[in-house]
Amino acid sequence: MALIVHKYGGTSMGSTERIRNVAKRVAKWARAGHQMVVVPSAMSGETNRLLGLAKELSPSKPGDAYGRELDMLAATGEQVSSALLAIALQAEGMESVSYAGWQVPIRTDSSYTKARIESIEDVKVRADLDAGRVVIVTGFQGLDDQGNITTLGRGGSDTSAVAVAAAMKAAECLIYTDVDGVYTTDPRVVPEARRLKTVSFEEMLEMASMGSKVLQIRSVEFAGKYKVPLRVLSSFTSWDIDINEEAASGTLITFEEDEHMEQAVVSGIAFNRDEAKISILGVPDTPGIAYQILGVIADANIDVDVIIQNVSKEGKTDFSFTCNRGDYAKAVDLLKTQVLPKLGAKEVLGDTKICKVSIVGIGMRSHVGIASKMFRVLSEEGINIQMISTSEIKTSVVIDEKYMELAVRALHKAFDLDQPLV
Amino acid sequence: MALIVHKYGGTSMGSTERIRNVAKRVAKWARAGHQMVVVPSAMSGETNRLLGLAKELSPSKPGDAYGRELDMLAATGEQVSSALLAIALQAEGMESVSYAGWQVPIRTDSSYTKARIESIEDVKVRADLDAGRVVIVTGFQGLDDQGNITTLGRGGSDTSAVAVAAAMKAAECLIYTDVDGVYTTDPRVVPEARRLKTVSFEEMLEMASMGSKVLQIRSVEFAGKYKVPLRVLSSFTSWDIDINEEAASGTLITFEEDEHMEQAVVSGIAFNRDEAKISILGVPDTPGIAYQILGVIADANIDVDVIIQNVSKEGKTDFSFTCNRGDYAKAVDLLKTQVLPKLGAKEVLGDTKICKVSIVGIGMRSHVGIASKMFRVLSEEGINIQMISTSEIKTSVVIDEKYMELAVRALHKAFDLDQPLV
Repeated sequence: MALIVHKYGGTSMGSTERIRNVAKRVAKWARAGHQMVVVPSAMSGETNRLLGLAKELSPSKPGDAYGRELDMLAATGEQVSSALLAIALQAEGMESVSYAGWQVPIRTDSSYTKARIESIEDVKVRADLDAGRVVIVTGFQGLDDQGNITTLGRGGSDTSAVAVAAAMKAAECLIYTDVDGVYTTDPRVVPEARRLKTVSFEEMLEMASMGSKVLQIRSVEFAGKYKVPLRVLSSFTSWDIDINEEAASGTLITFEEDEHMEQAVVSGIAFNRDEAKISILGVPDTPGIAYQILGVIADANIDVDVIIQNVSKEGKTDFSFTCNRGDYAKAVDLLKTQVLPKLGAKEVLGDTKICKVSIVGIGMRSHVGIASKMFRVLSEEGINIQMISTSEIKTSVVIDEKYMELAVRALHKAFDLDQPLV
Repeated sequence: MALIVHKYGGTSMGSTERIRNVAKRVAKWARAGHQMVVVPSAMSGETNRLLGLAKELSPSKPGDAYGRELDMLAATGEQVSSALLAIALQAEGMESVSYAGWQVPIRTDSSYTKARIESIEDVKVRADLDAGRVVIVTGFQGLDDQGNITTLGRGGSDTSAVAVAAAMKAAECLIYTDVDGVYTTDPRVVPEARRLKTVSFEEMLEMASMGSKVLQIRSVEFAGKYKVPLRVLSSFTSWDIDINEEAASGTLITFEEDEHMEQAVVSGIAFNRDEAKISILGVPDTPGIAYQILGVIADANIDVDVIIQNVSKEGKTDFSFTCNRGDYAKAVDLLKTQVLPKLGAKEVLGDTKICKVSIVGIGMRSHVGIASKMFRVLSEEGINIQMISTSEIKTSVVIDEKYMELAVRALHKAFDLDQPLV
């Protein structure tokens, strides 16, 4: 008997029929003797519907007062699915109770629409578990110290689930979703992509941050910080499959580098086509330049990903970075109006038709020549590399968008990701 | 400058376009110098949609645990419209903040799905009003002393609004709805029905309890208890009509019997076709009989309306009552299986094709012969009276359903309700 946290995504909660299946699955786990805490997302489409109504009324975002109301609004989506799941569990003969974020409470800061969890009280939840109840903890939301409802941002229910698992010292946190695990790359791009049985926390972090949208990145950070064993698995298996089979399915995110994992130098190929590239040419190479450029961008709440500053020639340098494609026009405008004149820089160039492809692998730490193999493979395919960025366990390149599939397939094959591990 | 409470029904909040109109109307009142508290209902159809989902998952009602989750679920409908209204007000340039029931808090007992308000804290709301904000208080819901969300039952937002008005000592509580006031009877049945400029609290109570669904009856009780001046008016006038004209429109529910009102002996004709009649024949006329019959019915949570016990003949009596038509089958079954054998009564008879028609008027207190005039009018129309029930300010009859319109029209005319008051 262990304390287990299940998290179900919006697609898994998408209809009463599916909610009934979730209830049957959870009931199976509870009847097997586990103490069950379940964190459901809003029914698929619901959050968009609600935020769409808000946008009809007020397209602009005048600050905290507006963010506060957006959170009041959006938090209802998860509350609805929590109550429905509790009702479905009761219909299955399980005692069950649901708690909104403020009832637990899950305490957060006051950054509306992207709040961070600060603490979780477990007294109520534990009392219910001890009384034999399945406890539904509403995902995506919390309570700030002024008593306002906050939400954690898109995919925030993953973070809620991991945080609850950490606070309750759960044996495992199972993230049920519409895919059956983490793959070496997106199977829609490479049909030979293989499901990973395990992936290290650091690798998952790199993959999550680079467009493998299986898990919200903050949930992975949280899992890493508190060493929560995390498993990604499918909610579309039949609810009554053998519980041991189910418990071993999907992909386990681990915190130890076991020998098994050492064998694969590169674990996966991640890619992201939602980025755009911006360069400022002829920037005087003086201290504080990076801040003068990116400070303006950060103040506008634009996230920057890859940042590259070339070596300077004759006291001038070129400065490039990537950002979300949706922020591209705004960023270019800010640079042209606020940064270019002040710095006396030459020109702002941009390109939205780019993509980022990365190889990720914890084995890269102890193997040399992995990055250069990546460059060789791309060169053999005739793909020009526009930007390069590296970290201990990944190498990313920015290339022309039209070569993305080609690059991913070539790298996937070159690093033997289509071969089963020995 | 006064503190004013506005309440908007589900139809008035039915779309973003309508919510925008509500915001414009409220902004007009705020700009006229009033402190504004607004209580919105859920968008029309939303509560039914949510409860429909619950019913798909669990058609039965196994008690408190289920009721608790129904309230978690249904309360979100009002939270959505509160947040949307706050956003719409902000878009109109008004500072605005919304509070869920638990945030105010509005404290209630723990009778899920039909909770009663026990107290309302006004500290937060008053601080916001003093800071110049329009405050949205989410209707229909509250918080019990265990920290659970409760709801107040159908139409509960009326009660929320009146309770908030009472707690804050508001100058007036305006109930905006899809009708423009309280009528002498339903204009769909009698086209000559007249809007009442004022109606006494007691008359309103009788009308609300008898199917004139303008206001939830508990909101009227609340208004009576705390002497909250209450006005029912239309939200479908143009939002920018003159504020003084708007403030004098609709129907004011008053607490003083002024001379004006004395002139009308009967103020209105109410009717209800949602009832069914049940009789138990040959009941031994011994003490405790009424309790033995109705105790079983009450335990099954069935509301009983008219109750009649005939004089006894040879130690036996006939006992009749009416209940909601939806509870009819259940009530008859309970009587046949649990009451009939125990009492040794003869027979249970029932009829679902009945209706109740009532004349209501505070003037009936001081006028004789009103009831007999009612009976005469019905007799002249050839309508047989099946049951009669009277109170100080109303007389109700149960008749065959098919005569309902005829009876209402004849009484409306006989009591001069189609004539303007002098």
